[in-house]
Amino acid sequence: MATIIPFESSRETRHTPDDTALERISALVTEDMAAVNHVIIQRMESQVPLIPQLAQHLIAAGGKRLRPLLTLASAKLFNYDGTRHRKLAACVEFIHTATLLHDDVVDASVLRRGGPSANTLFGNQASVLVGDFLLSRAFQLMVEDGSIDVLRILSTASAVIAEGEVMQLTTNNDSTTSEQAYLEVIRAKTAELFAAACRIGAVVAARPAAEEEALRTFGLNLGIAFQIVDDVLDYSAKQEQLGKTVGDDFREGKVTLPVILALHRGNEAERAFWHRTLNDQEQRAGDLAHAQDILLRYNALRDSVERAQHYGAIARDALGLFPDHPAKRALLDIVDFTVERGF
Amino acid sequence: MATIIPFESSRETRHTPDDTALERISALVTEDMAAVNHVIIQRMESQVPLIPQLAQHLIAAGGKRLRPLLTLASAKLFNYDGTRHRKLAACVEFIHTATLLHDDVVDASVLRRGGPSANTLFGNQASVLVGDFLLSRAFQLMVEDGSIDVLRILSTASAVIAEGEVMQLTTNNDSTTSEQAYLEVIRAKTAELFAAACRIGAVVAARPAAEEEALRTFGLNLGIAFQIVDDVLDYSAKQEQLGKTVGDDFREGKVTLPVILALHRGNEAERAFWHRTLNDQEQRAGDLAHAQDILLRYNALRDSVERAQHYGAIARDALGLFPDHPAKRALLDIVDFTVERGF
Repeated sequence: MATIIPFESSRETRHTPDDTALERISALVTEDMAAVNHVIIQRMESQVPLIPQLAQHLIAAGGKRLRPLLTLASAKLFNYDGTRHRKLAACVEFIHTATLLHDDVVDASVLRRGGPSANTLFGNQASVLVGDFLLSRAFQLMVEDGSIDVLRILSTASAVIAEGEVMQLTTNNDSTTSEQAYLEVIRAKTAELFAAACRIGAVVAARPAAEEEALRTFGLNLGIAFQIVDDVLDYSAKQEQLGKTVGDDFREGKVTLPVILALHRGNEAERAFWHRTLNDQEQRAGDLAHAQDILLRYNALRDSVERAQHYGAIARDALGLFPDHPAKRALLDIVDFTVERGF
Repeated sequence: MATIIPFESSRETRHTPDDTALERISALVTEDMAAVNHVIIQRMESQVPLIPQLAQHLIAAGGKRLRPLLTLASAKLFNYDGTRHRKLAACVEFIHTATLLHDDVVDASVLRRGGPSANTLFGNQASVLVGDFLLSRAFQLMVEDGSIDVLRILSTASAVIAEGEVMQLTTNNDSTTSEQAYLEVIRAKTAELFAAACRIGAVVAARPAAEEEALRTFGLNLGIAFQIVDDVLDYSAKQEQLGKTVGDDFREGKVTLPVILALHRGNEAERAFWHRTLNDQEQRAGDLAHAQDILLRYNALRDSVERAQHYGAIARDALGLFPDHPAKRALLDIVDFTVERGF
């Protein structure tokens, strides 16, 4: 885990972020992002029609494209004026989409990005296989790019993501999961890809190791903050605005940070409740609402977001190395956007 | 599909293969194969214990290691005396194992390599994720090797395999599947990896394109023959000797070559039978035995093996380019072993 750097300095300079923060950032890389979208559409093609159909369902539905955005903004930070980052940003999105598809199988989620999840519509089998296709296609794109450094970064990220997902399986339904074990899971399953996405910007611009490392620190800590907030939102009413179901994690017995905090702060009766609902997966009507009550009682959601702020602060400070630049401001905006989603 | 080359020449020179053919071939590359096994054991390690546990269940159970054997024998054909082929042979086995794991999810198979399938023991979720890990680990090993050519060959193979598996999904439960569609599926899902495994031998030995192409032709056609025979064995009593369940394909409604031949040769009542059992998945006690009867009546198994022999012949002729060599004889033995399994 990265060294912890104090928090205070970053507060003043920050821009008041709002729901349109991502749009502002996207505006900075409009042309690049259009090119990325073009690569995505073009390269999920296959003579097997089910592949683009299913991939399109997820990719073209247009998530936030946060990860490719990180690659584009990182490259822009160095005034990189080539085009390699576009194809590689598409790689990052393909890897992410593959994990979403495989996650849907694992989690049996019903909603994803506001619509029915791919596996609900197409079946588990197709989700697994199209995920495999997208992952392989990502490696083909990297091979076309030709950089062994990029291949190393993304093959490692991809292996670590899988490890994180397996780790998560072993923490599911285990209400004794420690905060540290939770952090290790989300670092692996989420934050490593954020870190890789950012590093690639430095690699294509051929920047020195220290700058690549700064972007790695930025991405890794942003990713941790992002996942914590995501886990908070899964218990939050705000979630419905995002078109996602609330309580997925609860129903699946995922032991996330809000639950871990509430568990440690709660009494025996409450611990028994978590044990029954998460370990034994014995859930009744009203249990989700009761869980939300307990989380509220112990400020578990608010304090989880506080934890996220801490990682957000590390991410912000990692950029201290770089001079002022519109792309730097954009990356700082992403941190703010990420954390403030949680409030 | 490769050009079809006449069949006759290959018959005389062929060695009488038997069940120990693979052992004889393995003897040729004993040291290399021990090194491959070492790489496999070492590189499926992870700090997440479930990963080596599950991977070991499949890999250490020791399949035939046919694909890595192809890489080793191909390299030996050129008297390659380095060690790169060992790590790359492990890559090939990892990719294959990843597809097996994902296949188990797809097919809900109960037996695999004579024991319970991984997903029966560990659950679908773990099978998907450990498959992802092994695929990513394969790419990490290729990155360590450093050859963009190898990365291109195997990332392409990996994407084509996924396409083949998706194609197969769309032909399942469709008794109107043509022989051509069947061939396209097995070429993609099976034969491309055989072809890639062989090509790698030429790549590490830095051989000219024509020789790499000859090995590609060899591997591709061997792979097609192999899959046809595999599909035959799924209806054959011999299958039980291999520790696999008989009738998996039938139960899943897979439309394989024996069924396609019997369908075209059969009468209306028989076509209705296939439609009910495969398309509608409406299966009763005795249906598998009845299916086997029909296949027997129309020589569908025997003639499928004949088809396999045709591809085996193409494979054998592809090696005509190379002078006599123990590795060449070993590769020819593999063809014989592959086809004769079917009798």
